[in-house]
Formats: sequence, C-alpha cells, structure tokens
Amino acid sequence: MRRAHRIAAITKTLVERPHHVFGLGEFADLFEVARSTLSEDLAIIRSTFEALEMGLVETIAGAVGGVRYLPLLNKEQIRSHLEEVCERLREPERILPGGFLFIDDLLTSPPLLQKVGYIFATKFRSQQPEHVVTVETAGISVAFQVAQALDIPLVIVRRQSKPTEGPVLTMNFISGSDRQIETMSLSRRALKPGNRVLLIDDFMKAGGTLRGLTDLMGEFGCTVVGKGVLIETNWPEEKLISDHLPLVYLEEVATREAKVVVRPADWVYREE
Amino acid sequence: MRRAHRIAAITKTLVERPHHVFGLGEFADLFEVARSTLSEDLAIIRSTFEALEMGLVETIAGAVGGVRYLPLLNKEQIRSHLEEVCERLREPERILPGGFLFIDDLLTSPPLLQKVGYIFATKFRSQQPEHVVTVETAGISVAFQVAQALDIPLVIVRRQSKPTEGPVLTMNFISGSDRQIETMSLSRRALKPGNRVLLIDDFMKAGGTLRGLTDLMGEFGCTVVGKGVLIETNWPEEKLISDHLPLVYLEEVATREAKVVVRPADWVYREE
Repeated sequence: MRRAHRIAAITKTLVERPHHVFGLGEFADLFEVARSTLSEDLAIIRSTFEALEMGLVETIAGAVGGVRYLPLLNKEQIRSHLEEVCERLREPERILPGGFLFIDDLLTSPPLLQKVGYIFATKFRSQQPEHVVTVETAGISVAFQVAQALDIPLVIVRRQSKPTEGPVLTMNFISGSDRQIETMSLSRRALKPGNRVLLIDDFMKAGGTLRGLTDLMGEFGCTVVGKGVLIETNWPEEKLISDHLPLVYLEEVATREAKVVVRPADWVYREE
Repeated sequence: MRRAHRIAAITKTLVERPHHVFGLGEFADLFEVARSTLSEDLAIIRSTFEALEMGLVETIAGAVGGVRYLPLLNKEQIRSHLEEVCERLREPERILPGGFLFIDDLLTSPPLLQKVGYIFATKFRSQQPEHVVTVETAGISVAFQVAQALDIPLVIVRRQSKPTEGPVLTMNFISGSDRQIETMSLSRRALKPGNRVLLIDDFMKAGGTLRGLTDLMGEFGCTVVGKGVLIETNWPEEKLISDHLPLVYLEEVATREAKVVVRPADWVYREE
C-alpha cells in the first residue's frame, strides 16, 4: 500500500472518531509499515490539517504511543458558524403566537449540530469531562453531538422515570421562568461519584433547568466541569446560574414586527 | 499542495459528512488543481476504501459533478458489530427487577450508535428517505445517528406537545404490550405531505409505537419508506407491524438464572 492510500485510510479512521486515541501499533500492523514510515504519514496529515485549519492531529508519546484527531475550531470558524445559526434563527416564519420561536428543526439538523458539538468540544475539552449530561427532550441531539466530538458517553436525565432505568434518584426543582415545581430523575447506574460531567442544554431562560441539573449532579457526587447552552434569552434579567457558556443570545422576539433579534455571545468576539 | 496533502484534506471533508454531495469544482478551487488531477486523487481514495472495505466513495457524473462518501457496511461488518451489541446486552448486571433490561448506556454511546447508524443507512438508503422520524426519548440518539449517516434531518415526535412547536397534530394510539391509550404529537411544520420518511425506534415489543407512528405519518400525508428497530423482543408473539427491520432479537430475560438471551436478527445471516 502506497503512501497516498495509507493517508486516505488513516485520515478516515481518525476523523470518523474524534478524540479517540488509536494505537500507533494498530495502524502499523494494519498497513504493514514501519513505525517511522507511519510517523511520516501522520506528519503529512497533521501539517495539512494545520495549514487548512481543519483541527488538530495529536500524537501521544509514551511506550504504547497513539494518535488522535481533535475537531478544534478557531475563533473565526466559531464566529462564522454562530452567525450562520443566528441567520437561521432570524427567519420570520419561526415566530409563533405568544412570542415563542420554532427551533425544533435546527435542534435536529446533523450538519448544524456537528459544528455546535465541535464548538463545545473546543471550549470544554481541557476540563476533561467524562460524561455529557442533558435533560430530555430538545437538547438531546445537541448534547449527543458534543459527546461524540469528545468521544465520551451521553447521560439523559428524564422528567419521569421508566421501569427500564432501575433504581432512580428523583429530585424536584423550581423552573426559573415560571416558578413551577418540576421533576427530574436519573438512574443510579448512570453516573458514579467523582465523575467529571459537562452539562449541555439547548435553551436557557432563567437557568432553572441547569441549576436543577447542577444540584442533581451534587446528589450523585459528580463534579460539574462545564455548562454549555446553545441559546440563552436575555430575559428574565436575573439568572439562577452564572458560570455557563452560551453560544448565542436571543434578545427579542418581536411578534408584531415579525423580527427576531439574536446574536452570537460576547465571548465569541473577545480576543483570548 | 502535494497529492498526499490533498488526499488527507479531501478524505477528512468527505468522511465528516457522509452522504453529502460535494461539488468537484469546490475541491478543485480549494486546492487549486485541475479537475483531472482531482479525479486521480479521488480514484486513490475510492480504491483504498474499496480495498479496506471502508465504505463507498461515489462520483456523481453530470455538468456540475460531485462526490460523496457512503458509510456502507458489508454483511460481515454488520454481523460482527451486532454480535458485539449482543455481547454487551448479555452482561448480567443489566437485569433489573421485573425482567427489565438496563440499556440506557448503550443507547447513548457514540461509537456503538455510529455503527448502528451506518447499518440502518446501508439498509435503507436505496429507499431515499428525506427525514428520519422517531418518538422521544430513548430512541433519539439512535435515530439521530441514522439521520447523520444519511445527511437528512431528524424529526422527533413528542408524547406531550410544547408551546414552542406551534400548531400540532395530536393522536391517540394503543400501546401494543399493555393496551394503554397513549398520545403522540407532532408540529404541523415538521413534515410536508409527500415527504419520504424512515421510522427508527430503539425498542419494540408488540410494535404499538411504530404502528402509531405509521398512522401519524399517514395523517401528515407522508410516505413511510422503512421502519427500523434496534432491539425487538420475541414476546408478545403477535406483532402489530410486520414490515420492519430489527437488528437484534431479545428472546428472554431470565431473572433467576441472571441470563439474557439475545442474538442478531435472522436477516443478518442470510445471503443476499
């Protein structure tokens, strides 16, 4: 197998499973090449991805040795993708009676969410989360993409428990915007004390759900290493959490003018 | 940019978005190469994928011209992956009181579901579905992976409607196993008459949910082009649907013996 062929096969394997460490021995055996030749192949892939800003190919040193692909986006790529998301959110036909916004189609679009997953992975990977945690239903696809980009499992907290969950921990919490008592419930098997978890949700108003999730993680003895939300509204003014990362701000849904005011979050435009 | 570099970049772009057609002009411009050179690059990727059974790289002829990557699995790959799924399902600690089986962790595992998505994509792509449709909650990640593998949107039917869905179509149906009246509800905006839909669910007993989903699709004027389920139980004997594709059969959860009897579906072993 010649170099060009090996590069196609290695690239495919790496990109298909971001963040997963593949053993160098694995590749060397598969293509029957020396480690040194393989290193040259990987150097070509790495330099190409670097030049085209396609993410990072990282070689892990050590006795075993491994390589992985990290789907990292730079500030400009993040900005441009979130501006695209805002563009979609501004479509006036999304406006529903009562000032609600129809976004279900965006929350289940694979190409849109893949990049959202890459953005959260870029921002949170250094916190080394072991699980992504979300609450049913609308945020599941978003959270799943984050889990996939980080190669870690997703955990779905339910509103109501099911018999197939086994023993569950159920907790009441106060929804932030309408001050209702709501319930969340999670199987005792889903997480272990000490697990590092990343909370992801699709939509946040006051932050009651994320606050509730944080408390639930406390009950499991888990460490919350990050909180990400795709869309945050700037009402109500008072938020129940503060240490979260929103991707876009929804400022206003003006029903009469058929206008949606939305923009990428401030951090997107700040220099690091 | 030399050939090996171009091959890394092209492979990355194709694999990251299965089933999506990329214009040849797009690639030719990006790498500033002649169409003929690009065709040679693609031939190398195609022949590598073919030799290593890594899926199909398909060139689309015509004035515009395009290329896409199809993550197709062969019978042996499907078999080996489903045997692995069965192996996981047999873990005795999954058995819950009442003969229930804990499977939530499998239904949210990115690498396991990616291959499940590829299996359903392999089986149903010739039916040219335009949407994947599922019911909340457990099947969402599975269905999302199928949607991603086919590069089409996912539609999530809810048990209870939300104000952010706009006008909805709500329907009662009889759950097949315990004969209860249940409700499903979907936004009128989610689908258009004539849409070709692929139904995906994680778990099927009598098939009441899939039967209900089929009826709901009828109300929307959509054409159901396929029905896939990850796990089908062989109880009850009488099923409410017959034209579905299960991946694995769950035959028995023997609580006392702490034994789970499960195997890949028959079609997996049949010659085509």
